[in-house]
Amino acid sequence: MHIDLNSDVGESFGNWTMGDDAAIFQSVSSANVACGFHAGDPSGIAQTCRDAVAGGITIGAHVGYRDLAGFGRRFLDCSPTELADDVLYQLGALEALARSAGGTIRYVKPHGALYNTIVHHQAHAQAVVDAVKAFGGDLPLLLLPGSTALDKAEKAGLRGVAEAFADRGYTPDGTLVSRREPGAVLHDEAEVAERMVRLATDGVLRAVDGTDVRVEAESICLHGDTPGAVAMAAAVRAGLESAGVEIRPFA
Amino acid sequence: MHIDLNSDVGESFGNWTMGDDAAIFQSVSSANVACGFHAGDPSGIAQTCRDAVAGGITIGAHVGYRDLAGFGRRFLDCSPTELADDVLYQLGALEALARSAGGTIRYVKPHGALYNTIVHHQAHAQAVVDAVKAFGGDLPLLLLPGSTALDKAEKAGLRGVAEAFADRGYTPDGTLVSRREPGAVLHDEAEVAERMVRLATDGVLRAVDGTDVRVEAESICLHGDTPGAVAMAAAVRAGLESAGVEIRPFA
Amino acid sequence: MHIDLNSDVGESFGNWTMGDDAAIFQSVSSANVACGFHAGDPSGIAQTCRDAVAGGITIGAHVGYRDLAGFGRRFLDCSPTELADDVLYQLGALEALARSAGGTIRYVKPHGALYNTIVHHQAHAQAVVDAVKAFGGDLPLLLLPGSTALDKAEKAGLRGVAEAFADRGYTPDGTLVSRREPGAVLHDEAEVAERMVRLATDGVLRAVDGTDVRVEAESICLHGDTPGAVAMAAAVRAGLESAGVEIRPFA
Amino acid sequence: MHIDLNSDVGESFGNWTMGDDAAIFQSVSSANVACGFHAGDPSGIAQTCRDAVAGGITIGAHVGYRDLAGFGRRFLDCSPTELADDVLYQLGALEALARSAGGTIRYVKPHGALYNTIVHHQAHAQAVVDAVKAFGGDLPLLLLPGSTALDKAEKAGLRGVAEAFADRGYTPDGTLVSRREPGAVLHDEAEVAERMVRLATDGVLRAVDGTDVRVEAESICLHGDTPGAVAMAAAVRAGLESAGVEIRPFA
Repeated sequence: MHIDLNSDVGESFGNWTMGDDAAIFQSVSSANVACGFHAGDPSGIAQTCRDAVAGGITIGAHVGYRDLAGFGRRFLDCSPTELADDVLYQLGALEALARSAGGTIRYVKPHGALYNTIVHHQAHAQAVVDAVKAFGGDLPLLLLPGSTALDKAEKAGLRGVAEAFADRGYTPDGTLVSRREPGAVLHDEAEVAERMVRLATDGVLRAVDGTDVRVEAESICLHGDTPGAVAMAAAVRAGLESAGVEIRPFA
Repeated sequence: MHIDLNSDVGESFGNWTMGDDAAIFQSVSSANVACGFHAGDPSGIAQTCRDAVAGGITIGAHVGYRDLAGFGRRFLDCSPTELADDVLYQLGALEALARSAGGTIRYVKPHGALYNTIVHHQAHAQAVVDAVKAFGGDLPLLLLPGSTALDKAEKAGLRGVAEAFADRGYTPDGTLVSRREPGAVLHDEAEVAERMVRLATDGVLRAVDGTDVRVEAESICLHGDTPGAVAMAAAVRAGLESAGVEIRPFA
Repeated sequence: MHIDLNSDVGESFGNWTMGDDAAIFQSVSSANVACGFHAGDPSGIAQTCRDAVAGGITIGAHVGYRDLAGFGRRFLDCSPTELADDVLYQLGALEALARSAGGTIRYVKPHGALYNTIVHHQAHAQAVVDAVKAFGGDLPLLLLPGSTALDKAEKAGLRGVAEAFADRGYTPDGTLVSRREPGAVLHDEAEVAERMVRLATDGVLRAVDGTDVRVEAESICLHGDTPGAVAMAAAVRAGLESAGVEIRPFA
Repeated sequence: MHIDLNSDVGESFGNWTMGDDAAIFQSVSSANVACGFHAGDPSGIAQTCRDAVAGGITIGAHVGYRDLAGFGRRFLDCSPTELADDVLYQLGALEALARSAGGTIRYVKPHGALYNTIVHHQAHAQAVVDAVKAFGGDLPLLLLPGSTALDKAEKAGLRGVAEAFADRGYTPDGTLVSRREPGAVLHDEAEVAERMVRLATDGVLRAVDGTDVRVEAESICLHGDTPGAVAMAAAVRAGLESAGVEIRPFA
């Protein structure tokens, strides 16, 4: 029994800090490193890569729309060509910084609005896949279960890896409860840790209606942007290890 | 007898075009490709790389200060660490786009204010050299004769390559005539072509005072941002070829 | 009989030029001046304002999405609050530069994707109207006929002004022929000039199916980004003046 | 007896927060509001202006170099014209947001590297003054004692106002102790509060060598970017009020 734990890191920019990367690195096995388009400046990214390498944590590229003011959380209706080239640019930039730190990119996870858009947006999903193929090395893509990009990745000969969200409620269909509805976000560390143990061992989560739902996930996404989130990440890791689940990068 | 001809390309950004890359590619052997910090967006850079590969032209990274509004022509007093990481980020980004076009970066030429600053600014010169070392592959650096960065490159085990400027006047010391003084810029195509033939064959240029000055240069920088510049570039190439000088990348 | 002629200006950025503002200022009565978010840097905007004032041309604020890389031509799914504040920021910035040139903003025209989006996007249309109200002075909004923003402007007590496009074909419904269909763009100067005379005098345009369609427009949009566009603008103005139509700002 | 207390606010950007504006607004009488070039996005600036107006705090424009990645802390060698227009753009943008919040800009304080540069850089100092004049209203400039910009402001008919720094050590000459030397930064709240009382009442500070030095200052700069800074700001205000010094905007 094993599973991966991933979190977004390297999202500081210039004089602004975001999250506590050092703290979250105590818990995760995979680091989604910002690439400069939604967050992350070169020196901060470089430091994050050095910390990831020092901590034995796998580096993934957290690519996003070109929208610093919106933190990549706003859909941007760019052309597929623009998007593919923007993603490729980000991959190359991060790779240079990762390599100088003794690491390398081992997977790609789209960020924010891009992550959500390519669940259904055919052209943007394909553009991301095209960029990953063009980059070389056939890196796996970390995505939402059911994402159109999963299909497109596999058709392109890339591995599509589904992830679960530790602190999110699930519908009986196995999709996330909308943030506009009750039960969308879970706050109890013990409950979340227990749920993740069950996910890792049985592949099952308790849905908001009390039924069990099967969720396929090779990785669990954790947050690190608040002290509470860092504590929850630690609780999830401790819970999994206590239950005999190995924390291991998927890539 | 042989020499390299280089020019700045890929400097369009979004809806704005700069220069006529297709035209200048008829004349040069080396392309200084913008990397997105002073100019160049990912799709434009990608197209430039495809055109360079199609034309058999060597790709160089034209790295600059992070200053789009100033086109990289304004000194920015960043820390050496910031500069080194900014340069490394640019190198990686361009490399991904170049590779997807079937090419690779073969040299680095700092742009604009960075090029001029590292003639004398020890810390920025070292930062550029450090970034090129960190990137790997020990790429040569294309620089102004006398640049502090030439020494630092060589101390770091990199090849420092000096270039001449086709349309610029020279002092008896072998430095460029200041743009504030008469004779700084030459406009006559035939004269410029003839001077470059002499440079390539004898290593000598006629200075503003009429004396001859020895100028060591493995490459000649040509402009491509105006129709007149493109015509002059063609004249220089034609003149060199007529004189039996082979046009050949230095890298 | 009178009509306004408007064109986009001030769209250069840093070292990149766009269009020939001096030339188009010979033809238009209203200048849609970029405000720095899709195009335009402060010094270029300032110069454009001085030229507009010198030429007796009315200054309008050409506000857009925050997307320099996309020239404001890509829909950006920002929140209404973000959009309203972004627009207000742009209005204030332009106003300071216009005032220092002896002018003032007399109308607002949304640019590119924002212009097109607020034809149908309720929240973004309202956000633009809210920003114009918040700015003060109850500036009129220059918009596409049928735009949702026209209604919202009027409900807010602002004047909504419809414009026609000189070089575009019209459907029998009075809407623009899609650029994906034949007849979308007209290239013949004489034909375009004649159509605009008929529009200004009779309020009627010949549609692509040969029927006449009534088009309400107080202003005609002209392009200035190519030599051909500038020549067409001059032809339209000359045609209108020959027909006794006065060229006069709508605002 | 009265003095002004000022602090930098509105420096969040997009998803990144900076400082605790609500907390620092409990202590200061003047708010240096970021204008978007070194920090601050329109919605954040708007909120800051609303909070300032609600708190009865005077709004100042904290204008900076165009350098988001460097937080305006890096000298940028722009031309005086570019700088003047960049400052004017920022003033107008902030004014529109301030007005929509029921406020208005009442003074200008250059930020970071610009603040430090215009202590000695004639052309940049003049450019800032020119921009403030061009903006209209003859706003006072808040500056370092001895700044060249103070002279230039006064020559231009503007009021130049000198400020002191609550948590900084002073040399016997009345200049700040360099951050590279001991005694540069003071950490003891009570000591700092006591020093500021003496400054406000007697115009004197104890210098690092133990002598007293006369410091002319109509305002005291406080920090708000850490919990400790906020607590020190509160201590300074409490100390001044206890000593019967009125806290009152200088502008």
